[in-house]
Amino acid sequence: LRAAFGEAGVPMQLPAGQAAVETDALLDALRQVLRFSMRTSHPLFYNQLYARVEPAGLAAEWLAAATNTNVHTFEVAPVYTMLEGEVIAKMASIVGYPESTRDGLLVPGGSASNLYAMHIARHRAFPDVRRRGLGAAPPLAAFTSSHSHYSYTKAAALTGLGTDNMVAVETDEFGAMLPEALEAAVERAAAAGQKPFFVGLTAGTTVTGAFDPVDAVADVCARHGLWLHVDGCWGASLLLSRKHRHVLAGLERADSVAWNAHKMMGVPLACSAFLTRHRGLLEAANSSGATYLFQPDKLHTAMDIGDKSLQCGRKSDSLKLWLMWKAVGDAGWEARIDHCVALADHFQSALSDPKWGGAFRLVMPRACTNVCFWWVPPALRPFDPAAATEEQLLAIGRAAPRIKALMQAKGDAMIGFQPLGPRRPNFFRIVFANAWSTTFEMVDALLERINDYGLQA
Amino acid sequence: LRAAFGEAGVPMQLPAGQAAVETDALLDALRQVLRFSMRTSHPLFYNQLYARVEPAGLAAEWLAAATNTNVHTFEVAPVYTMLEGEVIAKMASIVGYPESTRDGLLVPGGSASNLYAMHIARHRAFPDVRRRGLGAAPPLAAFTSSHSHYSYTKAAALTGLGTDNMVAVETDEFGAMLPEALEAAVERAAAAGQKPFFVGLTAGTTVTGAFDPVDAVADVCARHGLWLHVDGCWGASLLLSRKHRHVLAGLERADSVAWNAHKMMGVPLACSAFLTRHRGLLEAANSSGATYLFQPDKLHTAMDIGDKSLQCGRKSDSLKLWLMWKAVGDAGWEARIDHCVALADHFQSALSDPKWGGAFRLVMPRACTNVCFWWVPPALRPFDPAAATEEQLLAIGRAAPRIKALMQAKGDAMIGFQPLGPRRPNFFRIVFANAWSTTFEMVDALLERINDYGLQA
Ligand SMILES: Cc1ncc(COP(=O)(O)O)c(C=O)c1O
Ligand SMILES: Cc1ncc(COP(=O)(O)O)c(C=O)c1O
Repeated sequence: LRAAFGEAGVPMQLPAGQAAVETDALLDALRQVLRFSMRTSHPLFYNQLYARVEPAGLAAEWLAAATNTNVHTFEVAPVYTMLEGEVIAKMASIVGYPESTRDGLLVPGGSASNLYAMHIARHRAFPDVRRRGLGAAPPLAAFTSSHSHYSYTKAAALTGLGTDNMVAVETDEFGAMLPEALEAAVERAAAAGQKPFFVGLTAGTTVTGAFDPVDAVADVCARHGLWLHVDGCWGASLLLSRKHRHVLAGLERADSVAWNAHKMMGVPLACSAFLTRHRGLLEAANSSGATYLFQPDKLHTAMDIGDKSLQCGRKSDSLKLWLMWKAVGDAGWEARIDHCVALADHFQSALSDPKWGGAFRLVMPRACTNVCFWWVPPALRPFDPAAATEEQLLAIGRAAPRIKALMQAKGDAMIGFQPLGPRRPNFFRIVFANAWSTTFEMVDALLERINDYGLQA
Repeated sequence: LRAAFGEAGVPMQLPAGQAAVETDALLDALRQVLRFSMRTSHPLFYNQLYARVEPAGLAAEWLAAATNTNVHTFEVAPVYTMLEGEVIAKMASIVGYPESTRDGLLVPGGSASNLYAMHIARHRAFPDVRRRGLGAAPPLAAFTSSHSHYSYTKAAALTGLGTDNMVAVETDEFGAMLPEALEAAVERAAAAGQKPFFVGLTAGTTVTGAFDPVDAVADVCARHGLWLHVDGCWGASLLLSRKHRHVLAGLERADSVAWNAHKMMGVPLACSAFLTRHRGLLEAANSSGATYLFQPDKLHTAMDIGDKSLQCGRKSDSLKLWLMWKAVGDAGWEARIDHCVALADHFQSALSDPKWGGAFRLVMPRACTNVCFWWVPPALRPFDPAAATEEQLLAIGRAAPRIKALMQAKGDAMIGFQPLGPRRPNFFRIVFANAWSTTFEMVDALLERINDYGLQA
């Protein structure tokens, strides 16, 4: 890679005394960037929870870049501040938040969104912490599941809560939080002198796609006076489908929701919404009233949205989502989501086709659009993870990395793998994110090739 | 604005049941966006610390958007992760950090950069806080100046320090921190039972452009064992000029530096670097070791940079800075920075031209490229802020908003204003950010027009 840039006459290094380079050479450099970049728009890119560039989204992103401005004030970003209001209103209404109290922001990513949730939840419970620090609150405790995204942990470290005080509540074997386990953990923490204040659920976990039971947990939270946040970064897009939104039942009871439009909806990176039903709380927790930016006596001050944010400068991420919504329409989103879930269902049933002779083994039933599976080396068939020996588990755990490396070498599909506890060594997780152009035939053919790679590996 | 979108057939609202809109109408919508967007590339846009879109930067941003990927892992972003390393190395070497220990990250903005500084400073001093929470540390205290950016305050609230424990140290009348005042504040805090751990300086304050004295403060920090962070979001770019870098003397002694390439260097928003001379500390403070992303047994794991970050997904902001550096070159940057400072000097001396008859009054000598000035209504001339009555202060404070509103109505220059304490009511702050194409004649003509607006207002 370094060599290719060097040969193109534009070495990667920026040495002391870097000379100005001619435009032709700059274009050559851009060609190298393209040549070595991952084809995330390839129909078989299933490695991450995002995929494929949408023309309307890209056009909007290009235009937003060309107008190069920040969305902190209306005066420098009149259209973008208003469009941000529109996409937030639309998403909040789909969540089910009442118009009169809903609020939200676009943030740099789902990790930031989960951080905002913990931050404003704490502010609501202990407003003095803002000024006086955590010493003004009793020892706090927060709760997520053992399958939740690592951004909760990062937020616990950053906000001074401490990762030990972020309890990882037990899940069922598929990764969905057990409400009884949560309630027991809350009571244990309280008995130990901690003050529980926050529950962070996940709607569509990263690896298994599990949906924590929002309704049942909302009851627990109501009983104990806890803020309920739902990390729907991955799974909230299922709200767009009448057929599949039931997995999010009760979401309107959550105090806040994180929803990444850059994942399943395919909006260009990054486009992530933080939504809450507590209007004014973002502002209360974050406002600084900087007089150089939010002058009360300039024009249109009431339209400024910057003081709700933890950021100062903030890119306009609203236009791409807004334009895609106009391009795709509500019915279009529904069809896309339904197709992604149908692909996952099809993939799942294709795995157990007798023609494979046990070459594939499902780790668990598909959830969201995640299908978790092993390719099983012939010597290990039929594979039963519950009965497998240590050695067999080690052996199967070596298959996925080898197959993936072969696929990468061929420029074939990209599919991620990971282990999950001792009895679930490395398995593939295929995720259908924004895969509306993928056909059943394409995934059938992909399975053939995975099997071939497995036999070669 | 709403009406214009409505007339174009693409209302801003996204109603329930939003239909899919034809491509032609989408293009019409984009035309409205352009029509109503602030001309931040206008040669007279001086309202913010960023301005003007650079072709190389924009081309890079467009290409990065087209390849739509995250920079957390090398496998999905081989070029971008490597180029991020190159621009971080370049900036850190300009700061003066030794190659063997420097480290850094591109972050979503300067606010995030200041937050990272407080976070890793705390982690270094009290590593147990990460797991056990702030209860594991004594009551902490941090120090910035009363002119520092409000993101320090937001970080104090977010991290659980509390804004009361973020001491606003006194500055001289131009906004530069007084090292003696800092040392006294540190000793006061320690005497009151707090544990000082962090000093956040500013190199180029937002309003007045002041540079806190890094070298003198570094001595204080060394004496008291404090982390020294320098917020150079605005002013660090002066390092690129041999003539002007002396205002940052001692910067290599800082433990960390924030430097926004999207401000004075004109890289498209956002492009913000966090730099530190403590390699490994970002990773120690932030790593999560998520096995679904940073699998030890996939290819090229050692090249992953995602685990240093507080984010998971992260846009590639490196290419635009890298390509602009190749396009402009070190000598080109120096010439651009020198020109911006020369513009500020020229503007400042033009204000006192006798031809104005006292219509302009400098608030303080220019610092960085910030020039702060009043337009003085005829009845108040000659204006002396020290001797002015309450009523006169009120009257002059009304001038800037009125002039600005007239300028906005005409589509003329954009220049920000703000007050600064009781004796400095609303004044204009003109800032030359990435203004290499602006000529002395243009700013002379601008002064003429400001004077005309003033007389009309
Ligand atoms: C001195 C200073 N620091 C930090 C920031 C924040 O930078 P950003 O807008 O990228 O968050 C600013 C923004 O104007 C600033 O002037
Ligand atoms: C469930 C879940 N939450 C949050 C995130 C973080 O989102 P982001 O990458 O936008 O920070 C992810 C990322 O994969 C995720 O899967």
